[in-house]
Amino acid sequence: MSAHLAIAVQSVISAWKSQNKRLDDMIVKYADEQWMKETAPDRNTGVYLLGHLTAVNDGLLSILGFSDKLYPQLENIFLFNADKAGLEMPSVSELKTCWHKVNTNLDAYMAKMQPEEWFTRHTKVSEEDFAKEPHRNKLSVLNSRTIHQSYHLGQLAYLG
Amino acid sequence: MSAHLAIAVQSVISAWKSQNKRLDDMIVKYADEQWMKETAPDRNTGVYLLGHLTAVNDGLLSILGFSDKLYPQLENIFLFNADKAGLEMPSVSELKTCWHKVNTNLDAYMAKMQPEEWFTRHTKVSEEDFAKEPHRNKLSVLNSRTIHQSYHLGQLAYLG
Repeated sequence: MSAHLAIAVQSVISAWKSQNKRLDDMIVKYADEQWMKETAPDRNTGVYLLGHLTAVNDGLLSILGFSDKLYPQLENIFLFNADKAGLEMPSVSELKTCWHKVNTNLDAYMAKMQPEEWFTRHTKVSEEDFAKEPHRNKLSVLNSRTIHQSYHLGQLAYLG
Repeated sequence: MSAHLAIAVQSVISAWKSQNKRLDDMIVKYADEQWMKETAPDRNTGVYLLGHLTAVNDGLLSILGFSDKLYPQLENIFLFNADKAGLEMPSVSELKTCWHKVNTNLDAYMAKMQPEEWFTRHTKVSEEDFAKEPHRNKLSVLNSRTIHQSYHLGQLAYLG
């Protein structure tokens, strides 16, 4: 295994952690009432985006083959439905707890992975497809989620 | 060179290109008047963010050691100063031209790079520091810029 491979993997993981840290910091900074506001007129609320990002990270536990989702009940509210669909949402306080719990679990599983394991297939791609499309690996899923998270962090910044 | 290394590099480059494509699509979709609007009340205008992202990509030509910046005059307006600082901005039409020209150049230089070259130091880190911090390489700079771009794309989506 080349040193460069370990560096590449570490760089993607660091970027992922940095984005999570930015949301951690917003959780400290914004009062619960701020999370209830829209990020811009007629756009997603903070609480919806907090639930959405939590549900996406929870999905990583499954996609990366670590465990089942911790909070599968978040899927319907925050992944399959848009904000303001009239569904009952968990409180901001509950979502913060879910967010931290999911990330603590992800960190623990990731810490045990060897660099080469990041190049194995994620659970949403079949062995057959993966043989033809080796870029559909765990590392690229993690990086996609990092980029997705940053997109919504740019919106959540507008709550401040 | 391991096949995984080439896959890791390609994955980061693909993510970078996908984000550029999203801004390309917005350029097609939004009329020039839309770019002049604020992305949310009292927040950055579309035109400022377009200039900002263009200036950041232009900086990559230099940081990655490809060439000098094509439009160094954008730095002061879009990197060193915030929106609404009272500086004269190029028109939306001019910025679109700069955006495409910068990315065309970046693509041409990137196409010539071998995977291993992405693990060499970028021009903002000294040889001495790089020896101690090998993660400060070209690939991680590109990925940071991808994540940064996505952050602002989330805001630019609010123009639509």
